[in-house]
Amino acid sequence: MARFIKDKTAAYGLAPGEAVFIGTKKVDVPSLHIIRYNAESLEELHPEDTHGLQKDQGKDLISWINIYGVHDTGIIQSLAEDYRLHPLVVEDIVNTGQRPKMESYDDQLFFVLKMMHYNEKENRIYSEQLSIVLGKHYVLTFQERPGDVFQPLRNRLRKKIGRIRHEGADYLAYSLLDAVVDNYILLVERVGEKIEDLEEALLDNPGKNTLTEINNYKREMNYLRKSIRPAKEFILQLSRLETELFQGSTRPFLKDLLDIATQALESVDTYRIMLTDHLDIYNSSISNRLNEIMKVLTIFSAIFIPLTFIAGVYGTNFVHMPELQWTFAYPLFWAVLLIVALLMIRFFKRKKWL
Amino acid sequence: MARFIKDKTAAYGLAPGEAVFIGTKKVDVPSLHIIRYNAESLEELHPEDTHGLQKDQGKDLISWINIYGVHDTGIIQSLAEDYRLHPLVVEDIVNTGQRPKMESYDDQLFFVLKMMHYNEKENRIYSEQLSIVLGKHYVLTFQERPGDVFQPLRNRLRKKIGRIRHEGADYLAYSLLDAVVDNYILLVERVGEKIEDLEEALLDNPGKNTLTEINNYKREMNYLRKSIRPAKEFILQLSRLETELFQGSTRPFLKDLLDIATQALESVDTYRIMLTDHLDIYNSSISNRLNEIMKVLTIFSAIFIPLTFIAGVYGTNFVHMPELQWTFAYPLFWAVLLIVALLMIRFFKRKKWL
Amino acid sequence: MARFIKDKTAAYGLAPGEAVFIGTKKVDVPSLHIIRYNAESLEELHPEDTHGLQKDQGKDLISWINIYGVHDTGIIQSLAEDYRLHPLVVEDIVNTGQRPKMESYDDQLFFVLKMMHYNEKENRIYSEQLSIVLGKHYVLTFQERPGDVFQPLRNRLRKKIGRIRHEGADYLAYSLLDAVVDNYILLVERVGEKIEDLEEALLDNPGKNTLTEINNYKREMNYLRKSIRPAKEFILQLSRLETELFQGSTRPFLKDLLDIATQALESVDTYRIMLTDHLDIYNSSISNRLNEIMKVLTIFSAIFIPLTFIAGVYGTNFVHMPELQWTFAYPLFWAVLLIVALLMIRFFKRKKWL
Amino acid sequence: MARFIKDKTAAYGLAPGEAVFIGTKKVDVPSLHIIRYNAESLEELHPEDTHGLQKDQGKDLISWINIYGVHDTGIIQSLAEDYRLHPLVVEDIVNTGQRPKMESYDDQLFFVLKMMHYNEKENRIYSEQLSIVLGKHYVLTFQERPGDVFQPLRNRLRKKIGRIRHEGADYLAYSLLDAVVDNYILLVERVGEKIEDLEEALLDNPGKNTLTEINNYKREMNYLRKSIRPAKEFILQLSRLETELFQGSTRPFLKDLLDIATQALESVDTYRIMLTDHLDIYNSSISNRLNEIMKVLTIFSAIFIPLTFIAGVYGTNFVHMPELQWTFAYPLFWAVLLIVALLMIRFFKRKKWL
Amino acid sequence: MARFIKDKTAAYGLAPGEAVFIGTKKVDVPSLHIIRYNAESLEELHPEDTHGLQKDQGKDLISWINIYGVHDTGIIQSLAEDYRLHPLVVEDIVNTGQRPKMESYDDQLFFVLKMMHYNEKENRIYSEQLSIVLGKHYVLTFQERPGDVFQPLRNRLRKKIGRIRHEGADYLAYSLLDAVVDNYILLVERVGEKIEDLEEALLDNPGKNTLTEINNYKREMNYLRKSIRPAKEFILQLSRLETELFQGSTRPFLKDLLDIATQALESVDTYRIMLTDHLDIYNSSISNRLNEIMKVLTIFSAIFIPLTFIAGVYGTNFVHMPELQWTFAYPLFWAVLLIVALLMIRFFKRKKWL
Repeated sequence: MARFIKDKTAAYGLAPGEAVFIGTKKVDVPSLHIIRYNAESLEELHPEDTHGLQKDQGKDLISWINIYGVHDTGIIQSLAEDYRLHPLVVEDIVNTGQRPKMESYDDQLFFVLKMMHYNEKENRIYSEQLSIVLGKHYVLTFQERPGDVFQPLRNRLRKKIGRIRHEGADYLAYSLLDAVVDNYILLVERVGEKIEDLEEALLDNPGKNTLTEINNYKREMNYLRKSIRPAKEFILQLSRLETELFQGSTRPFLKDLLDIATQALESVDTYRIMLTDHLDIYNSSISNRLNEIMKVLTIFSAIFIPLTFIAGVYGTNFVHMPELQWTFAYPLFWAVLLIVALLMIRFFKRKKWL
Repeated sequence: MARFIKDKTAAYGLAPGEAVFIGTKKVDVPSLHIIRYNAESLEELHPEDTHGLQKDQGKDLISWINIYGVHDTGIIQSLAEDYRLHPLVVEDIVNTGQRPKMESYDDQLFFVLKMMHYNEKENRIYSEQLSIVLGKHYVLTFQERPGDVFQPLRNRLRKKIGRIRHEGADYLAYSLLDAVVDNYILLVERVGEKIEDLEEALLDNPGKNTLTEINNYKREMNYLRKSIRPAKEFILQLSRLETELFQGSTRPFLKDLLDIATQALESVDTYRIMLTDHLDIYNSSISNRLNEIMKVLTIFSAIFIPLTFIAGVYGTNFVHMPELQWTFAYPLFWAVLLIVALLMIRFFKRKKWL
Repeated sequence: MARFIKDKTAAYGLAPGEAVFIGTKKVDVPSLHIIRYNAESLEELHPEDTHGLQKDQGKDLISWINIYGVHDTGIIQSLAEDYRLHPLVVEDIVNTGQRPKMESYDDQLFFVLKMMHYNEKENRIYSEQLSIVLGKHYVLTFQERPGDVFQPLRNRLRKKIGRIRHEGADYLAYSLLDAVVDNYILLVERVGEKIEDLEEALLDNPGKNTLTEINNYKREMNYLRKSIRPAKEFILQLSRLETELFQGSTRPFLKDLLDIATQALESVDTYRIMLTDHLDIYNSSISNRLNEIMKVLTIFSAIFIPLTFIAGVYGTNFVHMPELQWTFAYPLFWAVLLIVALLMIRFFKRKKWL
Repeated sequence: MARFIKDKTAAYGLAPGEAVFIGTKKVDVPSLHIIRYNAESLEELHPEDTHGLQKDQGKDLISWINIYGVHDTGIIQSLAEDYRLHPLVVEDIVNTGQRPKMESYDDQLFFVLKMMHYNEKENRIYSEQLSIVLGKHYVLTFQERPGDVFQPLRNRLRKKIGRIRHEGADYLAYSLLDAVVDNYILLVERVGEKIEDLEEALLDNPGKNTLTEINNYKREMNYLRKSIRPAKEFILQLSRLETELFQGSTRPFLKDLLDIATQALESVDTYRIMLTDHLDIYNSSISNRLNEIMKVLTIFSAIFIPLTFIAGVYGTNFVHMPELQWTFAYPLFWAVLLIVALLMIRFFKRKKWL
Repeated sequence: MARFIKDKTAAYGLAPGEAVFIGTKKVDVPSLHIIRYNAESLEELHPEDTHGLQKDQGKDLISWINIYGVHDTGIIQSLAEDYRLHPLVVEDIVNTGQRPKMESYDDQLFFVLKMMHYNEKENRIYSEQLSIVLGKHYVLTFQERPGDVFQPLRNRLRKKIGRIRHEGADYLAYSLLDAVVDNYILLVERVGEKIEDLEEALLDNPGKNTLTEINNYKREMNYLRKSIRPAKEFILQLSRLETELFQGSTRPFLKDLLDIATQALESVDTYRIMLTDHLDIYNSSISNRLNEIMKVLTIFSAIFIPLTFIAGVYGTNFVHMPELQWTFAYPLFWAVLLIVALLMIRFFKRKKWL
């Protein structure tokens, strides 16, 4: 199955805005996790279904409703009705092959992002779609399965660390984006370290393994770039967007977020350039090696082939070969061989092959 | 015949706006298909000719007039008169070598697109020109031959699925564009999967076949790009265009369409980069192989050429060769051969060739 | 002589605006051709000199004054005085090494273009400078020699085909530009077809000829690009220019012209990319071949060199070589040779070289 | 450890704006250095801690407070409180993996830069983060360790050279930026000289060392670019920024600074292109060498292998070999060998290999 | 010494605006040359020093003050005082490592350019810094040494050719820029011609010389580009600059100048692309050659190695070798050799190697 583009066959021909799950089902039963907080109090809920979530909410509490598992389009739909999500938003949430993007609706901002983790053993990056809906007093997040990069954020919420409990839903949304983008930096750093380490092998011992590794890292860097570049783009847009959903005090944080995303993207590009350079050096190294090999072959051949020929001459069975009878013919023969060999060696020394 | 640019010889020197069919005739007799609908009713017609199509139309019905076969410029002309198409529009409809584009006229929008399908057997993408004219209450579509990507759309119309029957001609036009662009994604996905699968062959068994395949996919990706890039461009333009022909409620759908087109284009570019990377790896792999081959040759030559020389020396017929008479000369001779061989092997082990 | 930049030594150090012919003289005596027309009448003149051309002209006639041969700066100067051309315009007309461009003067537009034709035998594109001056009621064209792409246009004028006789001088200027740009498409198509045909040779029989051809087409495509790109640029400018010289009704035609120029340029770029891909494939193909050659060499060497060595051993003249006396020594010897050969073959089969 | 991106694991999951030192601790105890000056007087202080720095300051003095060592977040925090630094500024100061940037706060400008020095022995560039905070009457600088490029600037301050004592804090900040950017030029010049010197070795004696060097310089140039490009970007921004912190008279100096930064960046890019060209030439040179080597091998082999074969023929022990008995067989044999050798030499001369 | 970036060590740490000569001293004593003119009269002076130059000047005369030699910062300084040059301008004049640029001061425009000449023998381009200051009634030019591209301009001034004597200082400044940029075209043409001539050698006789030449031209083209690109940039700026220093009538000339600069830059880029293509073709040609060489080697080896082996077999001294006694053994032996040889030849013919 193509990894760089999701199979959309299931959704082909459907009306736009129709919700059909696209992707690989990563969890059996979707689960809900809700945190409601303000500066004074915080409560966590794990309801079975989404009924009455909206009505329940007091206006002075910020709600973070998180759903693991987006293959059950029913739950998504009922949530969509409660929060009046646009049909295209619902379609994007369940179609996990989205390009990262931001959409602005009347009183909501909608983000699609890729959350990535690196499987060191397989040397492969896996990604999962994260959809975020930001409203005036709530944030909805949709993930493909449990396990995410938001655990430290939840702890900050629970333990009242930093300013998060004193800020609005916009700061929560920013914090979510920040956690994802920070994770990109960590990822790039982990893969980047390995790429930088490759350098030595290139020059000293370039083999098929090195080639396989360069190839792998190139592919993974392209994979990373595909998710990070559009994310950076929409963060740039967001930092310039005139919206009431983001307060003035959150603005500098968006700019900081943009810096981090830019750094992640630039690092990916630096590593891509480095890998191209690595491959160039690898090829040059291989060519160098070939020259070395060919020099050895040529030197051996050029020295011994003439000698063998001379020996061959005196191995002929001509009846009249006066040299054969000479008393010192044999030592002389060796002397000739030696001289020829030395001449050849001198020739190669002059060519600086030896 | 050049595939990446259409032969325009037939139209050469003609006045601009003059309609001459350019391309390969793909159907014998053009055929018409008309759907007229509103939220309540829908009728389908297959008239023989285009007479009176315009007058017939009630103002509260949306008409979709589809023509298969554009080589009969007569029919196109008569339709053009009824719907007051600009001469340049008519020229573009029958000249199937157009670059995808959008033109805005007083009360019409004109689109040219490529509809593509992938012939897996020939590993080749074929394209067909689709021209769309959007008016206030009608959409005209011109295709080169029957068979298109609009069947699911027609079903949605007939079965009243989704919002299409409740919307205007603009939504119909959007749906047509959406069907074409969605099809691009499917196409890229099908070819892309094969490109990703190539990777293994590159490193393990790089042969002439792999090269042919890389070459084919490169060509096809360039072919795709040539059609998708201008399409994406005009969709961007369209999403920003201030026109009365598109209602406010259709706008978010245009933005969604732009996202899909962007994704298609980016995927094509990702695969083009991947193919370039593939070729690089292929070349490195081939160089690696050459080194392996040369090592084998060199090792064999370097070991046996000196041995052969020594054997040659004792094959000479010098009368005075004291060694030949020695009792243990022959075993000694073998010992020398063995030592030389072992020394050579050690030499190559040190060089890490063995 | 440099082909990609014209030798300007003759003009070096002259005052700007001074008219000195630069280029190769392509015709002996300049000749004039004048067409004056309106919707009702048309007359053609071939005057000897340019005296009184301006005064002669009735205000309701459009004049197209065409000059073949720009090396006679005298004629150009006298025409320049009659039509009050800016000195820099005159300089550009006679200096045939101009980059295609558009200049806007008070009541005139000035265009410089390259008219190109392809010499199939030499596989080389030749270009000629075409300068166009558009005034309210006249168009002046300056060519380096007789023979151009305007014959169909003249026929349309004479036979009243299309709208040209009903339109102003702006439409005539547009038609001239259109003829030149249409010709680019034809040219690209003719060369492009050959480039596409190269593909097969690359993989099956890559030789020095293929290389020469790739090189030639690359050079010619660069040559084409050098003329087409600035032309496309100024057509874009023109289509946006606010000028009274172009009427509203001619505007859509300019946009169409821009489309054609864009298509020409994009096709050139597509073919340039294709040629680069071709060269890559060519190189990979050559490397592949080298591997094939080396495999053959290595297999032959590796099989026969050990055999030769064994034969050499039993060709030595040691007195005490017990094997030589054995009855079945000779068949045994052959058996050993055979076994060694088979082992080598097996070795190469395992390596998948055979 | 990755050098092209800093390990941010320590800060992972922290609240934005929280100050955690990231990097390698380069000094044990942070030290403070304060210069307070106006046109008339100047005093230098080395206080132990940061208490009361702010209050102390007379309004008519410019303060430059420099801190070596940013791992002690306590000192930074207390300074931050005195000067009301934004939490994100503090985070950026102690997190030494920042991308160079400028941030504009209400009454402060914040800059992050890389100060670089080149270790010639290791052929490696080391960088250190420099953070600058510019307020109305003060400049704060944060460095990772003692030793910087500001010594000449301090001398100019002490000795009243140039206009610095007569200008405000903005000119001091500009002078700091200028010192850093000037140092980039010096650095590029030192590495660039070596890159230009490589050229000769490429063509005459391309070996593994040359390859290692090209690789090193490529890496270092990428490293330089990573720091210089964003610096140039923010200097451009700064030169256009509408801020009260920079007076009109300092503006031309900012433009000059931008010129220098642009020159540094362009030189880096020129050298990167040069290195790519170097590698291309290197590879061509290596290929050329291989051809030379193979010619030698082929010539030797092609001359002696046939000769050896002929000698082999007359070494056979057939009973009936009439040639062997001929009186002049042996000289004739030599004559044949000679003729064959001469023919081969002629063959290679014709091929222009000799 | 680095050629692509000037050694600025001498100026390191100096206050901005401080004038220190940077570069190689190219003349011993600076010399002055002054031309004062209006439409009626012209006088030329060669004063020893710069005293009283300013006061002397009548308001209705245009002064062109030219200085050869900028290492004597004293003279520059005194001139700077007379004409109130900004300190940064003075710094730029004496620091000859400037990037070409334009600076706009209150009533002055300041240009820095590179004047280049091509030493055909060394195949190397040398450059010299030219600084131009344009005021209302005067133009100051600073060159590194006598000998420039302005001789034709001086003659036009002296002999009243063209409009120069009737125009203001702005036209003089334009004429100076024009002379420099015209010279770029000549330079590119001279080098370009040689680059185009290389093509033949690439395919027919690719050797080390060709490689050296490609490398040289690449370096020189990069060198040219480094000076021409920023020049073109500032000419573009200048043509758009709203300044009272340039009159309306000079504007079209600036546009013309921009055209020439653009053409120079595009030609440089075309030649750079051509050189890259040349190198590609060169490499392919070298690979082709290697294949040829290896084919020769392989054919020789593969034919003679088996033959030698067969001869070796019948050179063995086995006592029981029945073939040796056969009467026709020897002719038969030759027949076998011949057949083997013919089979090999056929094998290679089938492979299309022969």
